[in-house]
Amino acid sequence: MPDASIHLDMHQPLAHQAGKGHNRWHPDIPPKLRVKPGTSVELDVLDGVDGQIRAGMKNEDLGGIDMGRVHPLTGPVYVEGAEPGDLLAVKIEAVETIKYGFTAIMPGFGFLRDLFPNPFVVHWEIANGFAQSVQLPGVKIPGAPFMGVIGVAPSLELLQKINAREAELLARGGMVMPPDAAGAVPGDAGIASKAFRTIAPHENGGNFDIKQMTAGTTLYLPVFVPGALFSVGDPHFAQGDGESCGTAVETAGKFVARFEVMQGEARRRKQHDPSYGCTCCPAPADGRPYYATTGMSVRRDGKAESEDLTLAARNALVNMIDYVVDAKGFSREQAYALASVAVDLRISQVVDVPNMTVSAFLPLDIFGS
Amino acid sequence: MPDASIHLDMHQPLAHQAGKGHNRWHPDIPPKLRVKPGTSVELDVLDGVDGQIRAGMKNEDLGGIDMGRVHPLTGPVYVEGAEPGDLLAVKIEAVETIKYGFTAIMPGFGFLRDLFPNPFVVHWEIANGFAQSVQLPGVKIPGAPFMGVIGVAPSLELLQKINAREAELLARGGMVMPPDAAGAVPGDAGIASKAFRTIAPHENGGNFDIKQMTAGTTLYLPVFVPGALFSVGDPHFAQGDGESCGTAVETAGKFVARFEVMQGEARRRKQHDPSYGCTCCPAPADGRPYYATTGMSVRRDGKAESEDLTLAARNALVNMIDYVVDAKGFSREQAYALASVAVDLRISQVVDVPNMTVSAFLPLDIFGS
Amino acid sequence: MPDASIHLDMHQPLAHQAGKGHNRWHPDIPPKLRVKPGTSVELDVLDGVDGQIRAGMKNEDLGGIDMGRVHPLTGPVYVEGAEPGDLLAVKIEAVETIKYGFTAIMPGFGFLRDLFPNPFVVHWEIANGFAQSVQLPGVKIPGAPFMGVIGVAPSLELLQKINAREAELLARGGMVMPPDAAGAVPGDAGIASKAFRTIAPHENGGNFDIKQMTAGTTLYLPVFVPGALFSVGDPHFAQGDGESCGTAVETAGKFVARFEVMQGEARRRKQHDPSYGCTCCPAPADGRPYYATTGMSVRRDGKAESEDLTLAARNALVNMIDYVVDAKGFSREQAYALASVAVDLRISQVVDVPNMTVSAFLPLDIFGS
Amino acid sequence: MPDASIHLDMHQPLAHQAGKGHNRWHPDIPPKLRVKPGTSVELDVLDGVDGQIRAGMKNEDLGGIDMGRVHPLTGPVYVEGAEPGDLLAVKIEAVETIKYGFTAIMPGFGFLRDLFPNPFVVHWEIANGFAQSVQLPGVKIPGAPFMGVIGVAPSLELLQKINAREAELLARGGMVMPPDAAGAVPGDAGIASKAFRTIAPHENGGNFDIKQMTAGTTLYLPVFVPGALFSVGDPHFAQGDGESCGTAVETAGKFVARFEVMQGEARRRKQHDPSYGCTCCPAPADGRPYYATTGMSVRRDGKAESEDLTLAARNALVNMIDYVVDAKGFSREQAYALASVAVDLRISQVVDVPNMTVSAFLPLDIFGS
Repeated sequence: MPDASIHLDMHQPLAHQAGKGHNRWHPDIPPKLRVKPGTSVELDVLDGVDGQIRAGMKNEDLGGIDMGRVHPLTGPVYVEGAEPGDLLAVKIEAVETIKYGFTAIMPGFGFLRDLFPNPFVVHWEIANGFAQSVQLPGVKIPGAPFMGVIGVAPSLELLQKINAREAELLARGGMVMPPDAAGAVPGDAGIASKAFRTIAPHENGGNFDIKQMTAGTTLYLPVFVPGALFSVGDPHFAQGDGESCGTAVETAGKFVARFEVMQGEARRRKQHDPSYGCTCCPAPADGRPYYATTGMSVRRDGKAESEDLTLAARNALVNMIDYVVDAKGFSREQAYALASVAVDLRISQVVDVPNMTVSAFLPLDIFGS
Repeated sequence: MPDASIHLDMHQPLAHQAGKGHNRWHPDIPPKLRVKPGTSVELDVLDGVDGQIRAGMKNEDLGGIDMGRVHPLTGPVYVEGAEPGDLLAVKIEAVETIKYGFTAIMPGFGFLRDLFPNPFVVHWEIANGFAQSVQLPGVKIPGAPFMGVIGVAPSLELLQKINAREAELLARGGMVMPPDAAGAVPGDAGIASKAFRTIAPHENGGNFDIKQMTAGTTLYLPVFVPGALFSVGDPHFAQGDGESCGTAVETAGKFVARFEVMQGEARRRKQHDPSYGCTCCPAPADGRPYYATTGMSVRRDGKAESEDLTLAARNALVNMIDYVVDAKGFSREQAYALASVAVDLRISQVVDVPNMTVSAFLPLDIFGS
Repeated sequence: MPDASIHLDMHQPLAHQAGKGHNRWHPDIPPKLRVKPGTSVELDVLDGVDGQIRAGMKNEDLGGIDMGRVHPLTGPVYVEGAEPGDLLAVKIEAVETIKYGFTAIMPGFGFLRDLFPNPFVVHWEIANGFAQSVQLPGVKIPGAPFMGVIGVAPSLELLQKINAREAELLARGGMVMPPDAAGAVPGDAGIASKAFRTIAPHENGGNFDIKQMTAGTTLYLPVFVPGALFSVGDPHFAQGDGESCGTAVETAGKFVARFEVMQGEARRRKQHDPSYGCTCCPAPADGRPYYATTGMSVRRDGKAESEDLTLAARNALVNMIDYVVDAKGFSREQAYALASVAVDLRISQVVDVPNMTVSAFLPLDIFGS
Repeated sequence: MPDASIHLDMHQPLAHQAGKGHNRWHPDIPPKLRVKPGTSVELDVLDGVDGQIRAGMKNEDLGGIDMGRVHPLTGPVYVEGAEPGDLLAVKIEAVETIKYGFTAIMPGFGFLRDLFPNPFVVHWEIANGFAQSVQLPGVKIPGAPFMGVIGVAPSLELLQKINAREAELLARGGMVMPPDAAGAVPGDAGIASKAFRTIAPHENGGNFDIKQMTAGTTLYLPVFVPGALFSVGDPHFAQGDGESCGTAVETAGKFVARFEVMQGEARRRKQHDPSYGCTCCPAPADGRPYYATTGMSVRRDGKAESEDLTLAARNALVNMIDYVVDAKGFSREQAYALASVAVDLRISQVVDVPNMTVSAFLPLDIFGS
């Protein structure tokens, strides 16, 4: 029985219930709920395109989607006691979905957008733990629901840094979606024109699309502002590592979690990027307890690259070596050799431009009890 | 009880028993064994550096390694009836290893070679299904042995195409190891100066370093010359996805497999790259039956790129879409959407320059019986 | 694509299509199909009560069930080359079910028949791999279909031995269902009055109700008559070990298998009871390859006991010790000690009177490669 | 880091350190440790025969074993707040073992004692998670350590009831080991002559030998005396369901757990026998979360039977029906039908005379979220 919650009208767009959510990242968006650490929090969540895709829509209808309304997030939630430099541990207790889902190929978007110029939509019926579709006859996708977007507010300083590096990348021809007030919630110009979009994940989390983040997982987010200002959205019923075409089994639903504040840990560990892990790990993880770091397409000197998986893999690996050195007291050489024989580099997503995400998984059962 | 075999003196370098193996890829290297399809074949295999790293060696001793002797392969095996345009199905029945293994950081080599300029070696003792090392106290790595290098001879035409595209890439500053007769087996100048090195995987397979290729897996290799000329080497006791530092738990051992010839299937499917799969899939796969395609850092127009994971992921995904269209009769759009919700893109290796490898895994249990 | 098959009208009782099956065990029932070893055979199968329980029936309707029609079996299938003293290996390739199932508590029947004197029926809807029922709201049973009854014809000598020992047991007050021509198929008095019922399993297999016998399993049946005369029936969509109330998720469906004849192996091994095993073992087995022996409530001196699990467990264990001694060359003491540390004794069924069944599972991964 | 502990000299018999343990069940044995609920408690434990079997012993040496010293238990631990009528939840956090183990066939003991009249001993070396033995060459047993004996003190009333029913059973020829002061710890005649032996499990727990009780499991024990008086002993490195010959891979080691007191729950549920369960369930359970009841060979009217698995299975099943009715609000008929399709009856042990144990496993994933 959750102790705190935000309930939505699941049939209304976010703009009609703007007191409960937002669709851009900015530190000045006011919190909608205050909770103490340890409280079970239940949040309703709309789907990633704000209900614009519905059962029965045709391929050609996809052209009318307003991308400015992507992604409606529920929150922010102010976690008492969280301060910049802390880590916010988000213990995910449940992710539930409604019975309808869709997968869409949208022109100009997705990993193979040059090869797939035409719109295409798959409508899913979700029941009994599987998704099935008349558009993919004979296919039955087992569910493992998770939230595509999950993160905290950036500080003003981080916001400006991200906007600057992505503007520079856009100028070099990178695949970047710059701030855009059209469709923004909240709509006040002061926020909407500066807030960054939710398409790409960043240091504050966001659109990670990491399919291992199912119920039972704990996510570790660096905190940038007092109260952390946690938000969540974009439920996926199932997804492959990569989310190749840019959409998973997209749906709406509910998220339940508890927060814990790890004081000063982001600062002490010099943790740049979110990490996550699991001690009791069902599918889609492979049953072994693990700790995972993430990496994005941003160089350590602050320069961003567009859709560079090699760079994302490198960052995930370096973050893992940092972790092993800190947690286990090994030298950097020991940690690197250990990673080579035991750490799995896995592609999380190849579509949330300009930042692809790679995760590095350390199985914890290799350390004797 | 295998029906055909090649036994080695495990304490001698390959050059002393050159009648049983080779360490370069070239179609004119004569076969050492002829077998019929269906025959169980057992091949002894030396370790990937030809026995140059031994228990007790110090970090500073790594400087003396002769990279020209990498990787000693056992074979080729001539499979009767195999012809260009066929697929050779290699049903892997067993991979066994000796009790010693090593992992080495070698200067100038490995994914993070800029950050790790110093040599470092880990010596492993292998027993009871685990590897342990005094260099990594408290760590116990569960075994899942597989062969790092597994492939067939290129045709002369393919050899020339690969040499040409990699020379062009080297000229652009790519990380390429060109043909080099020093240390080559066989040593005849006609072959050794043209044969390509075993460091990178290519269309003919080779140094894939895919940790899922354990016993029980079937590998599908396009055939380029009569008899296929199959060779294998570089046993790994365990490895993480990626093989980050460039070496796994490297060891020597034995390989047992049966071959099946799928007539004309590479040509019919237009299959560019090796693929593999498993219907009864233990760890390190996650227990679901799957079919996997591979992708390398070579553009479809024939131009190579150096260490480009984004390109490798793209190729693996396009190969998977081709497969699903052919095997299931779906349209390309259906296959792309299906991949987004069900296919896992996973990094196989980030170190076999210039070609990184990504595998795309299709779980077969999503198709109703 | 199966090479041989028996198709039924799934809406008709067996008596209307008696040329395709039977519901008693007797060596003189003529075969309905002849196949060579290695042939894929597909057999339609009716449900265990011959269609007498249907969706919508009320608890009180159960009183009208004619137990004489239990269980309609499809066959016999004559397997060419099978002779007494052989083992018939039945490689189960597929078990499929229709969309309706039921579970019934029938007065006078079931493990706790003294405590449950009233009829009760659960109607199941089967879809997407799960069974659900309005009689058990909130419950979702994952499917793992198998055949409750699977066996071969007894020889005339075995038939007489079984009838004699069960008559003696009945006289002592045992829970025995003696031969009964009412409802028998075939109906000829010569067969129907002597044939034994299908309720209990015996040396020839029969109503084992072993839930591990899903697709992928191989069953080893001793052969008693030329051609083996294999029959199958009573599909279960899911069941707990024990089948406590006497019925599982009972349904109709289809069975696909291939046969292999192991010449003289039952005689050489002195194998008294059927056995089974699996090398690639999904749920409901626990993923480890195994070989299993079975045990019934019959003493080695030929005397039967009624519903004696201790005796069934003893027989399964002694059968396993016999197997380990034969297969591994261990002494009987080694085999007994090995069983104590590694063999699992599991209750298969407690309801097929008078014979309860225990299986002993030997995990095969404890033997080094 | 445990908060409370009892450390033993692992090379001394229990009688030399009697201030830390006992080997009979009696309410007047004084507690050795007091803890609050929630405290992590670490207890060293000797092996089940008090160190009398050692590496190098011969088969014929087994004759000299003093069965009066079986089983040394560590405790009792007084749990503050526990009162009769409560359930004591024992959350098992770790079970560790030393590197030596044995398995012994002891004349007059074990399930097949009539067939195995001669002593036989297997000595195990335990390393890297496996047990191996020169007495069973080629066999490698994976570890899954648990405590064979785990329980709480009986009340004086329960003690008298058990002694009376087992004396009556002994008189009828049952396989019973009555109270015997020889070898007893503590040795005071008032306790030693009345205390019951640890060979059989009873309502207070004890020698259950249930191999699923590995780390991660929670055991629910009815409380009979203030403080519960918890004790533990007889570590097993591995065992098959049944423990056929009477000994598992017997060893010494350490037990870590936390206690929780569920006030009045044994009384409210009318829980007769211990139960257990797991929400994150590794091997040897099969990965599904479950709740399990136990059953012994004692009739509901209080009469004991000797080695009666049918009765034990019946009791486990009735206990499970009671549980489902209480926890889910189903009718008894619903619960019985549910058990038939989803509950697994499994033999836990067939050797702890006169009480065999059957467990009934209810998989919890059949109940929707």
